[in-house]
Amino acid sequence: MYKVADKEETKSSLQQIVNWSKAKYRYRTFESDRQIPTRSKILYLVHQGAVKLMAKSNFSGNYHLEEDKNTPEQPQESFLGFVGEGQLFELVDGAKFEINAYAQIDETSVLWMYWHELDNWPNFRREVFAFFRFQQQRKLLAIATLSQRNTIDRLYGFLSLMIEEHGIAYTNKTQPNQANGYYLPWSITHAEIASAIGSTRVTVTRLLGELREQGLIDTYRSHYFCLPPKNP
Amino acid sequence: MYKVADKEETKSSLQQIVNWSKAKYRYRTFESDRQIPTRSKILYLVHQGAVKLMAKSNFSGNYHLEEDKNTPEQPQESFLGFVGEGQLFELVDGAKFEINAYAQIDETSVLWMYWHELDNWPNFRREVFAFFRFQQQRKLLAIATLSQRNTIDRLYGFLSLMIEEHGIAYTNKTQPNQANGYYLPWSITHAEIASAIGSTRVTVTRLLGELREQGLIDTYRSHYFCLPPKNP
Repeated sequence: MYKVADKEETKSSLQQIVNWSKAKYRYRTFESDRQIPTRSKILYLVHQGAVKLMAKSNFSGNYHLEEDKNTPEQPQESFLGFVGEGQLFELVDGAKFEINAYAQIDETSVLWMYWHELDNWPNFRREVFAFFRFQQQRKLLAIATLSQRNTIDRLYGFLSLMIEEHGIAYTNKTQPNQANGYYLPWSITHAEIASAIGSTRVTVTRLLGELREQGLIDTYRSHYFCLPPKNP
Repeated sequence: MYKVADKEETKSSLQQIVNWSKAKYRYRTFESDRQIPTRSKILYLVHQGAVKLMAKSNFSGNYHLEEDKNTPEQPQESFLGFVGEGQLFELVDGAKFEINAYAQIDETSVLWMYWHELDNWPNFRREVFAFFRFQQQRKLLAIATLSQRNTIDRLYGFLSLMIEEHGIAYTNKTQPNQANGYYLPWSITHAEIASAIGSTRVTVTRLLGELREQGLIDTYRSHYFCLPPKNP
């Protein structure tokens, strides 16, 4: 996973920033599923745990079409992605969305700062820059994935991107000399996946079955999604 | 539209960079629809004109499902977005996509540099940073839009985001005192829109009719999409 302040020379900057944010009451720890209060123009760093970003849409009510009456009730929020330990986020509200952050797991700690305060830590600022550069590339791939017409392409692409970005290596115990697979270390429900890829829970469940049968997606310890090791 | 080097103090940096890139043969002008050769880890600046980003997917062939046989042939490339004058891009290939850049209009000029070369222009580097920060926010909104289950929400959201980001103000000639509307200064086909939002050309054409009837999307000078002025 891509992290800021992962190198030796910036680890001390990170420690300074953590101390600074605690002294300024800009450091808070959340239990699982608690919403993290956010404001625009502030930079948030996930120091421990993981954060889940969700978008609440204000589309409904803009227009009324015959066909809309047949679609099931729109889910309230759609899943946008995770922000892991050592990663950053900044939220902005669009005209049509309110984007919110939630602690994904217990003991999720977040610190925050104004952008200009980054000038105090030039090394760290450089890593923040590199992180946003990296994110921009990942988001282009996410957009390309969500533009796919077949739901199974969006589903497989979405899970692959998430596991590529946040996955943790595991070894197949029965064949310890084989290549590693990668698993996503957080739970995500079929309903959340459906909200991310514009589908329904029922369809996601069915298509996950297909992907599993073909050995493209698997589960690790029964509730984490994983990409199986590539056959040599 | 958000541009780098739009402020007085960075305009001279931009001119220096243009001169530098020309002297180093890192400046090229393209005719409409020509592909712009790109490499990873290089930063591209659109100096004049506009660039269109497209993703070619390698999904097909990964798996074969009954239902896939009924879907029409997958479009070769999906439209990801525009990069306007004074904006930047960097492309990366994912396992499942090849992302390409094309000149959207004649006389589109692009210059490029390695990332470490940005250190020569600290003011400009700061603006590049701000641009990627801004882009990260825009892309989160794009992802939220594409996660919508109803095609009309994706369509209306996609066009709104594009016009918000790249739109040019126009005044209603018959009521010059009214608020401005905004139009997208480049043509985009219904097939390109369909490829961006995971739909078909036929559906896009039909839903655009619905949005037009409700006064949510209009066309300016008959072939540019626009958001009509908001009624006071």
